[in-house]
Amino acid sequence: MNIRGTKPDRIDHLEPKKPHGLIVVITGNGKGKTTSALGMALRACGHGMKVCIIQFMKGDIYAGEWDGVKKMDCDIELIATGKGFCGIQGNPYSKEEHRANAQDAIDLAGEKIATRSCDLLILDEINNALHLGLVDLEQVLDLLQSKPPLMHLVCTGRDAHEKVIAMADTVSEVREIKHAYRKDIEPQPGVDY
Amino acid sequence: MNIRGTKPDRIDHLEPKKPHGLIVVITGNGKGKTTSALGMALRACGHGMKVCIIQFMKGDIYAGEWDGVKKMDCDIELIATGKGFCGIQGNPYSKEEHRANAQDAIDLAGEKIATRSCDLLILDEINNALHLGLVDLEQVLDLLQSKPPLMHLVCTGRDAHEKVIAMADTVSEVREIKHAYRKDIEPQPGVDY
Repeated sequence: MNIRGTKPDRIDHLEPKKPHGLIVVITGNGKGKTTSALGMALRACGHGMKVCIIQFMKGDIYAGEWDGVKKMDCDIELIATGKGFCGIQGNPYSKEEHRANAQDAIDLAGEKIATRSCDLLILDEINNALHLGLVDLEQVLDLLQSKPPLMHLVCTGRDAHEKVIAMADTVSEVREIKHAYRKDIEPQPGVDY
Repeated sequence: MNIRGTKPDRIDHLEPKKPHGLIVVITGNGKGKTTSALGMALRACGHGMKVCIIQFMKGDIYAGEWDGVKKMDCDIELIATGKGFCGIQGNPYSKEEHRANAQDAIDLAGEKIATRSCDLLILDEINNALHLGLVDLEQVLDLLQSKPPLMHLVCTGRDAHEKVIAMADTVSEVREIKHAYRKDIEPQPGVDY
């Protein structure tokens, strides 16, 4: 490398004067919400931070990140608590069953917050779980309010609630411009799962 | 866990009948483009795939992912080729200097494609580098066209070119709804860098 180009004269290391635990919401109908949260996990690991990922609803279909985090020499855990997307075609579980699992996930998130056991807590698909009525708005707002000031909390999933958005520091909406499945391309490992 | 809820009866393992190397474009002005690509890297590593990340323009400010990938017990490499964002306040390098570095990055990407040396190739900020004239449209389209059929290629950065979007299978626009910096919160490690 650097045949034509040269290295920068120096590499700066940012360090915020005022550390701030952020609430980040990643919502919208496009590809790149969970993956974005996973990228923050990788980034946080680089900084030596402790990471916990709790997946709501997911748990019935293998995803690459389940093994990906095991290959990281970091303090990172991923817990998939669910039974798939409630209400979608082919999912055999009742809403009550999905709700019971999502309630476990809420309890686990509450425990992680109360014991301050990580620096970055990712609640994957919690927006969706709230939208579907598997968890209640007050439960989610309670988690956000009780977050330690320096803990980063990331909430992913479609249909983020406006009150969750109101409490967040950074919110992105991932819009689908195109998706391979509309061309009948099946989900591909490494990108889609 | 699973105090109220139970585990799913079984865990399905998807496997596409027709493997397809996807072209994915992540663009827009919101937070979550590079992070999304990093998440795909983590996911691909879980599947035992080989990953190469080439960062255009980035290289002058330390980012957590530089060490994050080193902590992964996977075949993954990250090469930051740049000298920062061309034209932004405080960046001391000329456009010619930025272009020389971006041209090296293009050559490197071409080499990775020609030698089929990874399963997932991430060209971070290439959309931005193209928009700023540090690389040429034909160079980017050449890369996309010469991609092996099973290699996934991810192009991130604002202002993706319409011809790049036209060639992609999956395209997401990450829209900023809110960003912490607008509340004068500085970039925070683990989330922003």
